[in-house]
Amino acid sequence: MVFKLRGNKMVDKWETKITQIKPNEINIRGYRVEDLMTNLTFTESIYLLFTGTLPETGVGKLLEAIFISSIDHGVTPPSAHATRTAVSTGAPYNAAVAAGLLSINDYHGGAIYNCMHILQNALDLVSEENDVDGVAKELVHDAIQARKRIAGFGHRIHKCDPRTRKLFSLAEEYGIGGKAVEMIKAFKVAMKEQGKNIPINVDGAIAALLIDLGLPHDLANAFFMIARVPGLFAHAFEEKTTQKPMRHIDTKNHVYAGNENIQIPERREG
Amino acid sequence: MVFKLRGNKMVDKWETKITQIKPNEINIRGYRVEDLMTNLTFTESIYLLFTGTLPETGVGKLLEAIFISSIDHGVTPPSAHATRTAVSTGAPYNAAVAAGLLSINDYHGGAIYNCMHILQNALDLVSEENDVDGVAKELVHDAIQARKRIAGFGHRIHKCDPRTRKLFSLAEEYGIGGKAVEMIKAFKVAMKEQGKNIPINVDGAIAALLIDLGLPHDLANAFFMIARVPGLFAHAFEEKTTQKPMRHIDTKNHVYAGNENIQIPERREG
Amino acid sequence: MVFKLRGNKMVDKWETKITQIKPNEINIRGYRVEDLMTNLTFTESIYLLFTGTLPETGVGKLLEAIFISSIDHGVTPPSAHATRTAVSTGAPYNAAVAAGLLSINDYHGGAIYNCMHILQNALDLVSEENDVDGVAKELVHDAIQARKRIAGFGHRIHKCDPRTRKLFSLAEEYGIGGKAVEMIKAFKVAMKEQGKNIPINVDGAIAALLIDLGLPHDLANAFFMIARVPGLFAHAFEEKTTQKPMRHIDTKNHVYAGNENIQIPERREG
Amino acid sequence: MVFKLRGNKMVDKWETKITQIKPNEINIRGYRVEDLMTNLTFTESIYLLFTGTLPETGVGKLLEAIFISSIDHGVTPPSAHATRTAVSTGAPYNAAVAAGLLSINDYHGGAIYNCMHILQNALDLVSEENDVDGVAKELVHDAIQARKRIAGFGHRIHKCDPRTRKLFSLAEEYGIGGKAVEMIKAFKVAMKEQGKNIPINVDGAIAALLIDLGLPHDLANAFFMIARVPGLFAHAFEEKTTQKPMRHIDTKNHVYAGNENIQIPERREG
Repeated sequence: MVFKLRGNKMVDKWETKITQIKPNEINIRGYRVEDLMTNLTFTESIYLLFTGTLPETGVGKLLEAIFISSIDHGVTPPSAHATRTAVSTGAPYNAAVAAGLLSINDYHGGAIYNCMHILQNALDLVSEENDVDGVAKELVHDAIQARKRIAGFGHRIHKCDPRTRKLFSLAEEYGIGGKAVEMIKAFKVAMKEQGKNIPINVDGAIAALLIDLGLPHDLANAFFMIARVPGLFAHAFEEKTTQKPMRHIDTKNHVYAGNENIQIPERREG
Repeated sequence: MVFKLRGNKMVDKWETKITQIKPNEINIRGYRVEDLMTNLTFTESIYLLFTGTLPETGVGKLLEAIFISSIDHGVTPPSAHATRTAVSTGAPYNAAVAAGLLSINDYHGGAIYNCMHILQNALDLVSEENDVDGVAKELVHDAIQARKRIAGFGHRIHKCDPRTRKLFSLAEEYGIGGKAVEMIKAFKVAMKEQGKNIPINVDGAIAALLIDLGLPHDLANAFFMIARVPGLFAHAFEEKTTQKPMRHIDTKNHVYAGNENIQIPERREG
Repeated sequence: MVFKLRGNKMVDKWETKITQIKPNEINIRGYRVEDLMTNLTFTESIYLLFTGTLPETGVGKLLEAIFISSIDHGVTPPSAHATRTAVSTGAPYNAAVAAGLLSINDYHGGAIYNCMHILQNALDLVSEENDVDGVAKELVHDAIQARKRIAGFGHRIHKCDPRTRKLFSLAEEYGIGGKAVEMIKAFKVAMKEQGKNIPINVDGAIAALLIDLGLPHDLANAFFMIARVPGLFAHAFEEKTTQKPMRHIDTKNHVYAGNENIQIPERREG
Repeated sequence: MVFKLRGNKMVDKWETKITQIKPNEINIRGYRVEDLMTNLTFTESIYLLFTGTLPETGVGKLLEAIFISSIDHGVTPPSAHATRTAVSTGAPYNAAVAAGLLSINDYHGGAIYNCMHILQNALDLVSEENDVDGVAKELVHDAIQARKRIAGFGHRIHKCDPRTRKLFSLAEEYGIGGKAVEMIKAFKVAMKEQGKNIPINVDGAIAALLIDLGLPHDLANAFFMIARVPGLFAHAFEEKTTQKPMRHIDTKNHVYAGNENIQIPERREG
C-alpha cells in the first residue's frame, strides 16, 4: 500500500508491478510491449512476466522445450477428459478449458510442485557433514520405509521417457543444470541401490530445472498448466468439430488416426 | 468412428488425430515430441497442435507477436480481477485462473471471434460487381444505421494502439497480410468517410491476421486465452504473495509501482 | 444508478434489491433472515430470493417437488462424470462441483430453458383465430418438417417418466397448472397425431410449470442447477471416500450397490 | 469394486450407492423419487442424499434454517462479486456461478469446515481428567498464545448475529444441540475469561450443529455452498437484467434499493 498525493489529499492505493497501462502505451515489467513483440518469443515473455527480467538465450530455449514437453498427452489425462466431457454437453471453449484446469491437481499435473518441494527440502539438508548423495540416500530410505511414492519418479506408460532425456541434455548444452539436477540424479541412484529402479519422469526433470532456474516454487504448476492449455483447446476443438454431442466418452476406447512418423525438415534441424 | 479387428471381434473405437501415445514415445501430430523440443518454439508447437502442419518461419514469428500482444493488460480487465478475487479467498492457482477464464466472454476477450465473423462475412460478399471497398462501405453503412458497434474497432484507453501498428508491420514484413487485412483497413477508411474515425484495435488486427493465416474461426478466442493465461498466473502470484487475504479489491484504486522505461538490450534488437 | 447525498456531495451508487446488510441485521428482500429461518423452507426462500414475494403454500410444495425431481440421476450424466473426474485428480469440492456445473449446457440440463422458449413462443401465437391446439399442431408440423427435436420431449432411458406424471398431478392438486401446461399437453397430442408418440420428459413438465408460476425465462436452468448441486456434492463425496485417485472412470461400467425398495414410513404419507 | 457374472464372464464394476436408474424408475438411496416428491422437502432430500436416511422432523426443520441462514449476504462477499464480474463480461449463468464457487475457500465460506475441525479435535480431547470446560480453556489459551484466530468466532459486520441466536434456539427447541454446541459455548466463555469477548458467528453455530447431527466433516462446506448457490444466481440475474456489460463493479459503492421492513404474515407465524 502506498500513499500518493491526489489533488491536495493523500490517498492510499494498492500496488502492482506487472503491467503499466497508459493511453497508447503498454509496458510489461517496464518494457514496451511492441519491443517485446519483435525481440522476444512468447515463452521468453512469460519468463519476463513472472520474474521481471529477460531470460538468457539458453534459458529461453530450455523453457520452450519445457512447455513443448507438456503441451499434450493424448485423450486419457483427466484434464483432456473433463474438457471433452464439457464440450460434449455444449460448453463454450472457455468453460470447457476451465473444467480441464479444475481437473489438474495433486494426482494429475501436481508432480512438478510436489517434486520441487522434495528437492528443495533435500538441498536445504545438504551440509559439510552430509553431501548430496548422503542426503538423497537418507530421504529415499525414509520414503521407502514409509511406503511413500516420491513425486517426479515413475510413469504409468513410459519407462524411459524421451522428454526427460531431452530436457537434461538441453540443460547441459545450455549450461543450466545445477544443484537440483544433481540432487534428482542422486535420488535416482539411491533408489536403484535400494531396490527401486524407477526412472525420473518429465515432471521430475522440470521440477529440478525450475529450481536451478531460480523460479518460485509457487509457480511450479503454472508451467504445467500454461503448457497444457493449448492441448486442452486442441481436444475441445476436435471434440466439437468431429463428434456428436452427449456421447459416452470412454477414454480407453479410442484409436489414434492421425499422421505418423513425420520427420522435422532439414532447415529446422540446423 | 472406425471399426478395428480386436481378437476375432470387430470393435468400434473413436478417433483422435492430435497426439499418439506409445510406451516411451509421444508423437504430436505425427512428430516426435523430443524433435519438437529442439526445433520449434512453444508458439510454433501450438500452431502445429491446432493445424497439423509446421508453420513457416514468418508465421511462427507473427504468432509470437500475437501472443505477446495479449499476454497482459494490467489489473483492470475482468479476467484479472476475477482471478485476484478468487486468490484473495484462498483459491488454489488452477481455480483462480479458471475463474479468470470464465470471465472472458463476449464483452471481454470476445472481440477477435466477433471481428473474424464480420470480416469473413464481408469477404464472402466480395464479387466481380462489388469489390473490397464497396463491401466495406455497405457494411459500415448498415452498422451505423443499426447503431451497432463493429467488433475490432475502438478501445476504452488506446486511441492509437501500438500493438495494432506493430502487428500490421510484422505481417507486411513477413508477407502474411492478405485479403482480411485489406478488408479491415477498408472498413477503417469507410468508417472515417462516414464520420466515425475509430482506430482498429489489437483484437481487430489479430482477427484479420488469423483469417489470413487460415486459422479456424472457432479457435479465435483460444489465441486470446492462451496468450492471457500467463498474465492471469502473474496476477494470481502477485496477489497471493503481496496482499492480505479477503481484501476489498477496487481495480480503479491501484498504482503501478514496478520498473519503468527499460530498453531491450542491443543483442536482441539485431 | 441513484444519486445520494454524502456529506455535501452527490455521489452515484449502483443499486441492489436482493439483500440488505446492516450491523446485526440481514434482510432478504425486506424480510428479517431470522423470521425466514422459522417460517419458510429453503425452497420457499429461494422463490422469495428470485421473485421478491412469498410463495403460496401450494407453490412452495410444487417447487419442493421440482427440486427433488432433478436432485440426482446417477453416475452417467456428464455433470456427475466431470465432478468425479475432477475429484479423482484431487480437486477440492468447490472446484469439482464447478467442473460439474460447467458441464451443464444445451445438451445436458438445458432442456428446461429451451422448452420454455418453445412454449412461450407458442403461447404468444395463440389468438382468436388460432387456439392452443391449432398452434401446437402447426409448430409440431414445422419441427417435424425441419427434422428438429422439440426440447421437453423424449428421454434416453424413461418412456414414462414417473417425475413428469407426479409434477402434473401435484400442479393439478395445488391448482397451479395453466396455459403452459395446456400447451405442452397439446404438443404431445399433436406429436402423436403426426406419428411421433414421444412422452413429455421431466424438463418439459418443469418448463411448463415455471411459465405457469410466472418465473423468468432467464432463471430456467437455475432451477435445474440448484436442484443438481447437492447431487454433484453427493457424487464428489462418494468418489473421494470410496475410490482410489486417478482411476479410469467408465460411467457405463458401474453397478448400483445401495439400498433398494425402501418405503416412506406412514407418518410422512399423511 | 464388485465382480458380476455377465454372460459367462466375470466382469468387475465399480459401485455407487446414491441413485439407481432403471427404465421409468429413479430411486434415490432406495426411495422412489416420486414418493420423495410428495413426502419430503428439498432440504430433507439433501439430507437423505448425503446420509442415506430420512431426517427426523426436527432435523429437517433445523437444516431448512441452516440453509436459509447462509442463502445470501449481499453484494460484498467475493463469491457474489466474482459471479457479477463474470456476468458483466457476458458469461452464461453456469459459468458465472462456477466462478462464484471458485471464490469460496478458506477465507470466505471455509469457516464451517475449519471450525468443525477445531470442535471435533476438542471433543476428542475430553476425558475423565479434562472436561469440556477444561479442554476449551486450554485450547483457547494455546490459540491466544499463538495469536491464531479461532474459526467460528467474530464477524466483520455483526457483533450479535441474529442467525447464530436463532440456530441455537431452534436446536434447543428440536432437542438437537449436543456435545459440540456445549463445546463451542465453552469456547466462548473461555475466550471471554481470557480477555477476548468475541461472538460465535453463524459458521461456528452451523459447525457445531453439523457435528451434533452426525454429518461428515468433509461435507461441511457443501452445506454453505448449497445454501449460497441460489444467492449467486440471484446476483447473476440482477446483474444481467439491470446493469450494463463491462461496468466497473466496486462493491463498496452500492446502495440497497429494495423492499424494507416486511413482516411475515400471520398464517406463517403459527
